[in-house]
Amino acid sequence: MAADPSAPITDFNQATAVTPDPADPSVFRAELRSEWRFGPGINGGTLMATAGRALSESLGSPANHRDPFAITAYFVSAAVPGPASVYVTPLKTGRSTSTVAARFAQPAQDGTETDRFHVLATYGNLDSLGDEVHTSANPPSLPPPDQCVRATEVMPDFYLDAVPIMGQVDLRLDPATTGWTAGNPSGTGMARGWLRMPDGHAPDPLLLLMAVDLLPPVSFDLGVYAPAPTVELTVHVRANPARGWLRLTHSTRNYACGYLEEDAEVWDSNDRLVAQSRQLAVVRKPRG
Amino acid sequence: MAADPSAPITDFNQATAVTPDPADPSVFRAELRSEWRFGPGINGGTLMATAGRALSESLGSPANHRDPFAITAYFVSAAVPGPASVYVTPLKTGRSTSTVAARFAQPAQDGTETDRFHVLATYGNLDSLGDEVHTSANPPSLPPPDQCVRATEVMPDFYLDAVPIMGQVDLRLDPATTGWTAGNPSGTGMARGWLRMPDGHAPDPLLLLMAVDLLPPVSFDLGVYAPAPTVELTVHVRANPARGWLRLTHSTRNYACGYLEEDAEVWDSNDRLVAQSRQLAVVRKPRG
Repeated sequence: MAADPSAPITDFNQATAVTPDPADPSVFRAELRSEWRFGPGINGGTLMATAGRALSESLGSPANHRDPFAITAYFVSAAVPGPASVYVTPLKTGRSTSTVAARFAQPAQDGTETDRFHVLATYGNLDSLGDEVHTSANPPSLPPPDQCVRATEVMPDFYLDAVPIMGQVDLRLDPATTGWTAGNPSGTGMARGWLRMPDGHAPDPLLLLMAVDLLPPVSFDLGVYAPAPTVELTVHVRANPARGWLRLTHSTRNYACGYLEEDAEVWDSNDRLVAQSRQLAVVRKPRG
Repeated sequence: MAADPSAPITDFNQATAVTPDPADPSVFRAELRSEWRFGPGINGGTLMATAGRALSESLGSPANHRDPFAITAYFVSAAVPGPASVYVTPLKTGRSTSTVAARFAQPAQDGTETDRFHVLATYGNLDSLGDEVHTSANPPSLPPPDQCVRATEVMPDFYLDAVPIMGQVDLRLDPATTGWTAGNPSGTGMARGWLRMPDGHAPDPLLLLMAVDLLPPVSFDLGVYAPAPTVELTVHVRANPARGWLRLTHSTRNYACGYLEEDAEVWDSNDRLVAQSRQLAVVRKPRG
């Protein structure tokens, strides 16, 4: 029942690979793969991870600021499978962090380029931050992975066909949040699940950038079955994730006037809140 | 007991005024006022409102995209009283929204400029969004303004001296969240209060950009009395606020390794959640 069972499971590192341009090391080339689409466009989290990798390579030396602490993308058009370029502009290099801008673009048919999204980010070294944790947040409560449902098994075919990225990940959804797949949304605007990569890729900061944007839109759990493209997505990576399953949650408090905010959390196998994100999405309801 | 009782109450519009450069309408000049400091630097929310006003003027015609829908700032140095410039770069002009970048800089002593923060934003027209509200969020519960405490009366002198902006606003704090002023923080990482402008300025989208960054840092309520400069601040403005008092809340879930996220909400007098923000702040504890 997967979108396309013949589609290969691609390696996350391969799907988000970037290569510096030999003529200009501030420019990185990428190749976006159709298997990582979420709707007509490439999944926003995968795009964040691709841009995030270019920034990581750009800031890896001499400052050793390889890890995203905060990264924001403003999306202006849908990215499609094919070649892409990331243009990195350093803004400030500090002792403990560096701040950068980036532009993510794809070639258009007329030979020009079309911007897909624009990025601001602050990078540093997560290992340098120590281990002092005062968090008041509690890890989400959800059944163990083998009592959750595989995304590829529970989701309607129409959805899987449109979201081939579901075949690239091992995503297990909390049955309490999948009522929408049978036409019974809970109405609370929640989604929860477990994530691991079928290729054995261990969690790392770049995977977290994808993980925050992987669950089905919370608008589905509100009974609103319409695309909800992201206007703005900001991710805070708070710690290097431990090996093992990640737990993901999405929630919204404020769906109003066609816009909604979607908050995501990613928890690692040590019960550490390793990433937090918020996005503003616009719900594209069909005109009645 | 106010920081400086002789400091005039300045008009919010005056404090955040911008003037387009006659030679280049994409450049706006501003004058940052000492009375709007929050610590050694100008309050981050006031800076957002100043940059936000430049973007609003820049996008007001012909597209009529005057209102910030989402605006993000990455701070790279503290802004000080004196002249400043906002450099606006259009990124995309769409039918219903426009996306822009901006750079906020101040002249340095050597004649060069120093960047203070960098902005990405999407603007549109809040009046065009209609009135369909499905929010599941509930307005905060706090005592009426006359049973809350004026920020200028309850805060320690050391704090008010450092934060003259408190003399520019009528901010009433929920006594349940001011224990830290007497050395008894609640430990929950919460702050709540009422806001109105003493000059009668009615709430508008630009005031919301300041309002999200006005309450004392939630780290104080965790018993951590240290400056917590903002790394990144993103504000979503969700509706034009109604006249009357605004209610503000700050909270944090994850104070870890010297960083914390701070979520703010702004509710208007019609019980509408009109703005949401999140920031990543770095706690600058004195080295022991």
